[in-house]
Amino acid sequence: MEAIGERINGMFKAIGQAIRETDVSVIEDMARRQEEAGADVLDLNVGPAAEDREAAMRWLVETVQGVSELPLAIDSTNPDVMRAGLEACSNPGQAIINSTTGEQEKLNAMMPMAAEHGCSIIGLTIDEEGVPGTAEGRMEVALKLLASAMEHGVPTDRLYVDAVILPVNALQDTPPRVLDVISQVQMLADPPPKTVLGLSNVSQGSTLRPLLNRTYLVMCLARGLSAAIVDALDEELMDAMIAAEVLMNRAVYADDFLKAYRK
Amino acid sequence: MEAIGERINGMFKAIGQAIRETDVSVIEDMARRQEEAGADVLDLNVGPAAEDREAAMRWLVETVQGVSELPLAIDSTNPDVMRAGLEACSNPGQAIINSTTGEQEKLNAMMPMAAEHGCSIIGLTIDEEGVPGTAEGRMEVALKLLASAMEHGVPTDRLYVDAVILPVNALQDTPPRVLDVISQVQMLADPPPKTVLGLSNVSQGSTLRPLLNRTYLVMCLARGLSAAIVDALDEELMDAMIAAEVLMNRAVYADDFLKAYRK
Repeated sequence: MEAIGERINGMFKAIGQAIRETDVSVIEDMARRQEEAGADVLDLNVGPAAEDREAAMRWLVETVQGVSELPLAIDSTNPDVMRAGLEACSNPGQAIINSTTGEQEKLNAMMPMAAEHGCSIIGLTIDEEGVPGTAEGRMEVALKLLASAMEHGVPTDRLYVDAVILPVNALQDTPPRVLDVISQVQMLADPPPKTVLGLSNVSQGSTLRPLLNRTYLVMCLARGLSAAIVDALDEELMDAMIAAEVLMNRAVYADDFLKAYRK
Repeated sequence: MEAIGERINGMFKAIGQAIRETDVSVIEDMARRQEEAGADVLDLNVGPAAEDREAAMRWLVETVQGVSELPLAIDSTNPDVMRAGLEACSNPGQAIINSTTGEQEKLNAMMPMAAEHGCSIIGLTIDEEGVPGTAEGRMEVALKLLASAMEHGVPTDRLYVDAVILPVNALQDTPPRVLDVISQVQMLADPPPKTVLGLSNVSQGSTLRPLLNRTYLVMCLARGLSAAIVDALDEELMDAMIAAEVLMNRAVYADDFLKAYRK
């Protein structure tokens, strides 16, 4: 599984401040720490802090690239910020657009960028009417995302379908439905689209958030999830993820498998 | 999920000694502690300690029934010990025979007992040639178990298919195969057979056994596992199981969901 580290986000106070003050060391430190913790991709989101968000995203990309060779997920709903981030990438072909939805206007803006830069793209199962309540409704939007990818020449396995997990304390029927979507997306095409989740949303507003997060991540892995946006600094979460990778026979068992994976 | 508590087993030193000395209080205490920890069924195994294993099993059943109304899993490969245990049960219809294999001789001995007492029965996917190496091979034995149950008049959903998890450190391709068997068994009949695992075998000989155990249990739950033989006194294991039940929408979310489940 690809762990997409979520910590470089202007919504976090220290990161927001570092972005406003162009304080390189705070961002570099957070990039390094996530990489050491086992992150495979680093998500970059300028958040609400920046006045010039395009410049801020460019700066974030350049700063992180200075200390890490990990692929980057450019996280913005704004096409101009997205373009600025992708253009700053030294290797845009390994970047991930985070994200489009199934709304036609978003698809028209984001899919051509994925095709142009040869990068991957996360598509949320949200359309003009919001998040469908059922697995079937989410699958309809997944199909629309896939059709749009194919139409624009984005390879099917460069699309990451995000089935939009909602808080278990408010909508307890969502987590099992999202598991079904994860299974079903893998049958849509050959090669199939990947699947991804913004994991921590499952526990929004709940008690025992770390337990719910790591338990749901493991459940998703057992159903074939390809990637998740996670707090890579949550050590127990990463331990659970690594153990699940070993138990899926996708990481080699060794007596020190936790360390071996992180190296 | 049904958690079958494994701790009343003569292989554990203190339990073996209690069985030899017919020390009621040790057994009662272990029954109570597992029930309080969230066990749904108590497994009883006289182990190698007892000279007269039939008498020992009878005594175990009677002792545990004195303090707990939980269903019992009578754990023996010996048909005479099994019969002694079932006959001591005040409510044999809620007992579980643990276990038969797909070997014809075992089936001939154990299936008629399940039918006679109206109880459930665990069937291991092992035949005359041992444990099949593939998911397909295990499914063939599962079908044989199911056919035998139907032939003897045991309802399909009173059969628990145990797909025999083997240690991940020795046979790393087994855990994902067993997950596939768990999924496939649910499509064999209507109502489908249940599924069960002797969980801790997955981590036999490994480091980080508790992490591997609880991670694999959650993975199995995401694939629909019905029951597992577990150490109910492993609090982190039970926490993970309860969180998974909440996330499968099979236990109600509440801010104190761990406590609520155990009560």
